Amino acid sequence: MAITPLKNDRFLRALRREPVDHTPVWLMRQAGRYLPEYRETRKRAGSFLAMAKNPEIACEVTLQPLARFPLDAAILFSDILTIPDAMGLELYFVEGEGPKFRHPVRDAAAIAKLAVPDMETELRYVMDAVRVIRRELDGKVPLIGFSGSPWTLACYMVEGGGSKDYARIKAMAHNDPKALHALLSVNTDAVIAYLSAQRAAGAQALQVFDTWGGVLSPAMYREFSLPYLTRIARELPRGEGSERTPLILFGKGNATHLETLADSGAEGVGVDWLVELGEAARRTGGKVALQGNLDPATLYGSPDAIRTEVRRALDSYRDGNNGSRDGHVFNLGHGMSPDMNPDHVAALVDEVHAYSAR
Amino acid sequence: MAITPLKNDRFLRALRREPVDHTPVWLMRQAGRYLPEYRETRKRAGSFLAMAKNPEIACEVTLQPLARFPLDAAILFSDILTIPDAMGLELYFVEGEGPKFRHPVRDAAAIAKLAVPDMETELRYVMDAVRVIRRELDGKVPLIGFSGSPWTLACYMVEGGGSKDYARIKAMAHNDPKALHALLSVNTDAVIAYLSAQRAAGAQALQVFDTWGGVLSPAMYREFSLPYLTRIARELPRGEGSERTPLILFGKGNATHLETLADSGAEGVGVDWLVELGEAARRTGGKVALQGNLDPATLYGSPDAIRTEVRRALDSYRDGNNGSRDGHVFNLGHGMSPDMNPDHVAALVDEVHAYSAR
Repeated sequence: MAITPLKNDRFLRALRREPVDHTPVWLMRQAGRYLPEYRETRKRAGSFLAMAKNPEIACEVTLQPLARFPLDAAILFSDILTIPDAMGLELYFVEGEGPKFRHPVRDAAAIAKLAVPDMETELRYVMDAVRVIRRELDGKVPLIGFSGSPWTLACYMVEGGGSKDYARIKAMAHNDPKALHALLSVNTDAVIAYLSAQRAAGAQALQVFDTWGGVLSPAMYREFSLPYLTRIARELPRGEGSERTPLILFGKGNATHLETLADSGAEGVGVDWLVELGEAARRTGGKVALQGNLDPATLYGSPDAIRTEVRRALDSYRDGNNGSRDGHVFNLGHGMSPDMNPDHVAALVDEVHAYSAR
Repeated sequence: MAITPLKNDRFLRALRREPVDHTPVWLMRQAGRYLPEYRETRKRAGSFLAMAKNPEIACEVTLQPLARFPLDAAILFSDILTIPDAMGLELYFVEGEGPKFRHPVRDAAAIAKLAVPDMETELRYVMDAVRVIRRELDGKVPLIGFSGSPWTLACYMVEGGGSKDYARIKAMAHNDPKALHALLSVNTDAVIAYLSAQRAAGAQALQVFDTWGGVLSPAMYREFSLPYLTRIARELPRGEGSERTPLILFGKGNATHLETLADSGAEGVGVDWLVELGEAARRTGGKVALQGNLDPATLYGSPDAIRTEVRRALDSYRDGNNGSRDGHVFNLGHGMSPDMNPDHVAALVDEVHAYSAR
């Protein structure tokens, strides 16, 4: 691929904890139903999955929020559950109920049959999307590739969909931990292969979403989620020095484990809004960049209220980071929702840039 | 009321951090659908609310788990949302969807109309239930009365039911904090009057459920939940010395705030499974008793797995509490679910008593 030099590398510099002119910002689920142009495209494509599986459409919606807001990164439009889908579990969506699998895996025998999918056949549509988006971005901002974490994938694979209490996978953790570790192990192999392939296709940063790590007790997190996140951080090949592709480990409810995550080998740690950024900065001691962490529900507040909360988060980070704003990527603590107002997003992005200008 | 001396005061002694022969145990939602006898009673009564509003039936189901398991406390069979129901919001239940209110309050005008209900008229059915249960318990174990916390009540009152993201109440917190504080203030007055009335009717311990405090950022928790919990702990009249009726502040996701909760004036703090009990004990430094904190999903494990986890929790507490098991009330970190196996509950209760015997 022809390499267009990046016009805006703030996001990558912040992940290396290098000085930047102002704090970079992107928003989880920034390409989504809150945008009328997204709803138009979706109507035309028919469904979320049809959009994600068509590289041209995935590219179109990836770029939509960048046309509206001066965001500092693009994120591949895709789903966290593409890997189990490619493993044969068959992902589908029921309106209002979230993702489901037609063939959940619930015992050691089913788990033993799972294999790492081939990235350039079964998951070729993802790699093609990365390639098309990189071309169309033309160096405007970096492109983030991503995957679900081994534990989070396993939650959906065993439960067959979302869950209130994760009864099935927690029962497996207690009654057949060996089977669960086998599942987490093949998931980890697959995530490493998947992120490597996205990087080869052109992704300039990589994020792992450990959306459900926070449902585990500290002891169970240390057994069933953390070791696999650490293996990804250590084993994922991603270059050296300023050419290194940064890896961000995002986890809902990961506040208890920040010190360990900072030692995992990842370049960045993403946190939700249940921890003060200043405390997170103190506890990670400059070992990683931090990404976060406005409560997404703040976007239901007025633009003035949003600006106040943005300033509070920026200052909290700075206060915990020895007075420096370096090493911070601004984001929400979780994804956006369909009923949010694009004008409020504009206020958020504007305030991040204006208030954090060095 | 004729006072029958308590035959088992382990629970009350543990809340005073006094020595006991073994760690007391009760389980949130121990009277519930996982028991076939409960399902029988419910079929006869027609609905959950019909059961809660009939003192004889409320008494019957309160006592059911005590007939099966050697639990160390009974908890009033009721709902956390009785107060707003009595305020006129009209509580109802939709099968599979949880509690809802017919008349949610969504602005300052609606909030200004709310008043503390009269405890011996509008909430007489609760006080009658407490009186009947005390009589029927006949001193077997202490009876716990309870209420939702001001913030948790407000969540349901503003959202009109459960919520995924608490968009409405968080919008109110940002856009009209004065109105939200007015709501929290009348809720706090009502909770204090409600718990006082339950105590007068015979409740021997009181618990406040701050089920949704954990959806708030630390700054918002300190503004919208904590001050009201503290006001309850300080202002609720409950006697002195060994006659004092202990108050337990339970909160899902309250791990960030344990030090402050320990200073609130409450006798006990209940924690969920997202914090190690040992860490909670170290951080609260013997100022309060601790209640918790097995992940309820542990009950989906085998009896052997349950016993292992019970021992781990008991030892974690002891290790953080200078080698002593005193000051610990064993419980789950959240309520039980209908699909749990009563035999597994038996194993849990047995292991708590056997392993913690002094």
